Amino acid sequence: MPDSTKVQLPEDRYFDPDPRQKEVALELYHSVAGQPLVCPHGHVDPRLFADPNYRFGNPAELLIVPDHYVFRMLYSQGIALEELGVPRRDGGASETDPRRIWQIFADNFYLFRGTPTGMWLTQELFQVFGVDTRLTGQTAQEIYDQIAAKLAQPEFEPRRMFERFNIEVLCTTDAATDPLEQHQAIKASGWGGQIKPTFRPDAVVNLGTENWRQHINSLSQISGTAVTGYKTFIEALENRRAFFKEMGATATDHAAGTPFTAELSAQEAEAIFQRALLGNATTDDAERFTGHMLMEMARMSIEDGLVMQLHPGSFRNHNRHIFERFGLDKGADIPTPTEYTRNLYPLLNKYGNDSRLSLILFTLDETAYARELAPLAGHYPALKLGPPWWFFDSWNGMQHYFDQVMETAGLYNTAGFNDDTRAFPSIPARHDMWRRAAANWTAGLVVRHVVDRADAEAMILALAYGLAKTAYRL
Amino acid sequence: MPDSTKVQLPEDRYFDPDPRQKEVALELYHSVAGQPLVCPHGHVDPRLFADPNYRFGNPAELLIVPDHYVFRMLYSQGIALEELGVPRRDGGASETDPRRIWQIFADNFYLFRGTPTGMWLTQELFQVFGVDTRLTGQTAQEIYDQIAAKLAQPEFEPRRMFERFNIEVLCTTDAATDPLEQHQAIKASGWGGQIKPTFRPDAVVNLGTENWRQHINSLSQISGTAVTGYKTFIEALENRRAFFKEMGATATDHAAGTPFTAELSAQEAEAIFQRALLGNATTDDAERFTGHMLMEMARMSIEDGLVMQLHPGSFRNHNRHIFERFGLDKGADIPTPTEYTRNLYPLLNKYGNDSRLSLILFTLDETAYARELAPLAGHYPALKLGPPWWFFDSWNGMQHYFDQVMETAGLYNTAGFNDDTRAFPSIPARHDMWRRAAANWTAGLVVRHVVDRADAEAMILALAYGLAKTAYRL
Amino acid sequence: MPDSTKVQLPEDRYFDPDPRQKEVALELYHSVAGQPLVCPHGHVDPRLFADPNYRFGNPAELLIVPDHYVFRMLYSQGIALEELGVPRRDGGASETDPRRIWQIFADNFYLFRGTPTGMWLTQELFQVFGVDTRLTGQTAQEIYDQIAAKLAQPEFEPRRMFERFNIEVLCTTDAATDPLEQHQAIKASGWGGQIKPTFRPDAVVNLGTENWRQHINSLSQISGTAVTGYKTFIEALENRRAFFKEMGATATDHAAGTPFTAELSAQEAEAIFQRALLGNATTDDAERFTGHMLMEMARMSIEDGLVMQLHPGSFRNHNRHIFERFGLDKGADIPTPTEYTRNLYPLLNKYGNDSRLSLILFTLDETAYARELAPLAGHYPALKLGPPWWFFDSWNGMQHYFDQVMETAGLYNTAGFNDDTRAFPSIPARHDMWRRAAANWTAGLVVRHVVDRADAEAMILALAYGLAKTAYRL
Repeated sequence: MPDSTKVQLPEDRYFDPDPRQKEVALELYHSVAGQPLVCPHGHVDPRLFADPNYRFGNPAELLIVPDHYVFRMLYSQGIALEELGVPRRDGGASETDPRRIWQIFADNFYLFRGTPTGMWLTQELFQVFGVDTRLTGQTAQEIYDQIAAKLAQPEFEPRRMFERFNIEVLCTTDAATDPLEQHQAIKASGWGGQIKPTFRPDAVVNLGTENWRQHINSLSQISGTAVTGYKTFIEALENRRAFFKEMGATATDHAAGTPFTAELSAQEAEAIFQRALLGNATTDDAERFTGHMLMEMARMSIEDGLVMQLHPGSFRNHNRHIFERFGLDKGADIPTPTEYTRNLYPLLNKYGNDSRLSLILFTLDETAYARELAPLAGHYPALKLGPPWWFFDSWNGMQHYFDQVMETAGLYNTAGFNDDTRAFPSIPARHDMWRRAAANWTAGLVVRHVVDRADAEAMILALAYGLAKTAYRL
Repeated sequence: MPDSTKVQLPEDRYFDPDPRQKEVALELYHSVAGQPLVCPHGHVDPRLFADPNYRFGNPAELLIVPDHYVFRMLYSQGIALEELGVPRRDGGASETDPRRIWQIFADNFYLFRGTPTGMWLTQELFQVFGVDTRLTGQTAQEIYDQIAAKLAQPEFEPRRMFERFNIEVLCTTDAATDPLEQHQAIKASGWGGQIKPTFRPDAVVNLGTENWRQHINSLSQISGTAVTGYKTFIEALENRRAFFKEMGATATDHAAGTPFTAELSAQEAEAIFQRALLGNATTDDAERFTGHMLMEMARMSIEDGLVMQLHPGSFRNHNRHIFERFGLDKGADIPTPTEYTRNLYPLLNKYGNDSRLSLILFTLDETAYARELAPLAGHYPALKLGPPWWFFDSWNGMQHYFDQVMETAGLYNTAGFNDDTRAFPSIPARHDMWRRAAANWTAGLVVRHVVDRADAEAMILALAYGLAKTAYRL
Repeated sequence: MPDSTKVQLPEDRYFDPDPRQKEVALELYHSVAGQPLVCPHGHVDPRLFADPNYRFGNPAELLIVPDHYVFRMLYSQGIALEELGVPRRDGGASETDPRRIWQIFADNFYLFRGTPTGMWLTQELFQVFGVDTRLTGQTAQEIYDQIAAKLAQPEFEPRRMFERFNIEVLCTTDAATDPLEQHQAIKASGWGGQIKPTFRPDAVVNLGTENWRQHINSLSQISGTAVTGYKTFIEALENRRAFFKEMGATATDHAAGTPFTAELSAQEAEAIFQRALLGNATTDDAERFTGHMLMEMARMSIEDGLVMQLHPGSFRNHNRHIFERFGLDKGADIPTPTEYTRNLYPLLNKYGNDSRLSLILFTLDETAYARELAPLAGHYPALKLGPPWWFFDSWNGMQHYFDQVMETAGLYNTAGFNDDTRAFPSIPARHDMWRRAAANWTAGLVVRHVVDRADAEAMILALAYGLAKTAYRL
């Protein structure tokens, strides 16, 4: 038996066990392992790259405190977020000693057995930070030291890591009202890394957003268009899209409770917007307005060529106690059943036949893959399917995706991979899992004689690299 | 590496890669590969067999222009249906050169990698037309020539192919108002092939059908019963069922947006029908009437012994632009979430305990397999589950079906396979995929010691041949 | 080929066929095969253990007549429940000759090929009753004799079997109004077997229960609290919970059509309860009251520490004819699509952050595993997921569970296994299937290098033994 105190990352990890399939999978994987990483959607902070001397903090600050994939699991077992250093909105006490936070994490690292978070972290610690000892309560502080020592080295500046990770392009996600100062600083610095913004107007489009009125004020200010009604709102958005495009953006991104779409008349849109300005918009107003604005965004995408992403179906902030105490993105966003066929009918009928539109759909409801999304993507020229999202960005999630999407949608109506992460050092591990899953799927087709080897090589290259570039127009 | 310009169809294709399972699968497959094909449901045009000298047209006309599985995928990548020769309703121009259409198809054949359409076509070209060269832009015209030369030979008359395919019986799908002249001609010709009609009254039962009033006029005319109200409508339908039965039909078929069933009082049924005759029926009327008529059809099936098929859950003609320009069945029918437990409650409570009824259910929502359909079929004597339908008539779709249906429904509450195709030359390839999937599943049970070899042989024979005959009373 | 008249139960049965995975699976399975069985939820009659001389009846009475898993499959093929000896409510004739019933069962045992019932029964006959001949129409009477002879032996008294099965603890399911006399008798007898009651108040909580008013009268009587309104109803329930706890209960159990929860005001609760007392409660009243009572039960669980189980989503007695003629639990309960994210929002917001609550959720809708249940359990400290339930307590059901739950929920937010059976002699076979499925899953992680061997050993022990004890506070 191998030394169980050491981490093993065998070259053929994750692949299905049949020796012949594994051999083909490994060959296909190797054929793309050296391809650059294309990161068309994610939440990395551009600040990391704007300041050439930016340094990551300590191991807890880097890997635990900001990562809701990590602390939600600890919380589910009764560990308070305060113990993990998650800051409280009211300024109440949270743990400040990173070694204590790290120790709790290490003591409970067994909770991540068989989870994607466990798989990513293990690979990240090993490959990025050179940690080849298993993380346990016993080894916690020794590993903390190892990581901390690495973080102090110049090779661990984000720009150096970006280059070492072989990232070809990385797109951030930015509010419509963001002045994109970090992106401007990156451009001005002369550094060659491609960091592109993505236009995400949720805070001004979804009328139910906390402090919506203030976001509208910011929009007026930054766009130079006083938003006093629906018409000026649209103008301001068009203005911001143009600015984002100028700054290198190739895409927009939209969240919504459901993929509901429906066009309002100009009068209705105006009436709802006026109610919202007065603070009188109802929940129904908000839903109808979002549904209408998704159609408007499709129209604008046809006009300006920005790719449109739609991420529907999350019940955000399901745990009010956690939201009130700690705020957004604290591991309490829960998927809901999501219907696409009827909800997207208005939008697709108006714009779905227009190849100038590239609408990339995501889902948190895997049942829609084979039932609705693949048939839609296998018909409408404007539609592509994004990769497995969030909880489904996992080994099994990828198997379900290949299994349920590809037969009907066809590979070439999908959009490759995106890591969707705010955890910058986890990017190589996430892409590696996708490339392995893609190689494993393609190898399965080869050994079952569904595709031949030449086809398989074209397919794995598309999955690892080409599809994302094409779909996002990068 | 094998010659990548040649098509490989190894004898063990598609099976799971474990060598022991593959060996058993191959043996089970061979044990039924010679069984005749039973085709109890499909859309082949009976005209093919009515005229002994019927000849298929050119390769594009045979394999592309009429096949929405094929052109939807090309359309999804921005290729206009006009370029593929799909005729426009308004008589506008469509490509008429079959070699050009074929060239576009071949140039884009890579889109079908890993899809059932790709698998069927590859096998069909190889086995039916002797094409052993991979279809690409380069080989397009050479392959066109090969197929065209075959089509000119007398062995490629439909009746000869029917015999060569070893088809025991093939059921067509025919409108309630169809005079079945083709079926009569086949009977009169003395040819021995079994071609049976199926009674599909959707156009007169679903009040929302385009030109419903004209269909009712046709029904009056052909049945000899003037349909002036609900009662005469029922009489006319009973009359047509009797005629279909006389002509050899053993089954009816019904499409519906949902499997909603509910009995109307005689007065309600009459009132709705009268509104429909005046062109005043509402959407709600239409839904309630369809739900009622499904119950009526079950009643008639109990009386006349015709097997009843129900195909619910497709959102037909989702793309209005395509419907208006090209009509029905153009690859734009999209599945919807479909509920069976509550919807079928009225029908099953009234007729589900009666073994004289054989109701075969289909679904486009795989989530219903294990949750609703298998428990229902594993209880009600009148119920059987049809095979994977449409998008799910695929290798993965079959895996899901075996995986999610069999444990709870039991093999003997399922209805074997049907190819549901209008593409006559694809029939052997479609049945072959099912027999391979069935052999692969059964072999999995053998190597995991869930069933023994003797059971497995009975099971594969039932799946390949017996279940379809029994369920459809053929 | 092995002798096909003999039953084969190879040691490596059910495992995936890859030789390396199978080897690891077998080793992991062996590492826990000797662990005692923990049975925290089921429907075994405590009477079996209250009377030291209790004897099972004949083979039909033991294995067919009371088992709806068995007779539903026979019924689905048109065999009347009367022929299987199922008693009629109206006292009408049912078959009384157990040998005839057994013969019908044996003649049709092929219907269970590939089903969990077939797998359990085969193993149970072999391991518990020493039957190594395949059950067919030919061998029916010989096997009947074998089983009958065993049942006559003292080793087949339930207490002896309990000990031989190595059951550490078995929890029964008992009405709120049950005096628990059997449990008292077991305690009084001095026998060492751990048989614990579970508090299931459905009949008094769900206002739509047949004879609800009588159940309330029984509740008044047994609790010594005259239930005249909502307040006394709550007092009576608290009183009964305290009694159950005194008698060793560690858990409650609740069925509901949906997991709907919502708190009523005291006035609303009182108003609904008063309407119910007068026989005037509506369906809507009943649903709202159940939703409210689930919240009350969570509150009480926090106070008294009883684990709370929720089993929602079954459409009970779908077949009215069968219900009217034979009563409850006759194989006609059908699952429905079940939503958790919104339905549990009120309950989880009020109590989900409190670790004193242990709420174990079950589902008959597998689509909720990855979409809703795993994300909820991977966040809320109070929540755990129960094992695959009912139709999903099967080999495939277990694969789906491991595949769809574990990545997001994490192993340690699950509750191990429970057999949920009323068929006492099937308990070892059911746990054995779970342990094999768990070993197979864990071995898959090992051979794919997701977890190492040391982790795998901890995981299989948790799955086979530890998680159930912890989750149920046993």
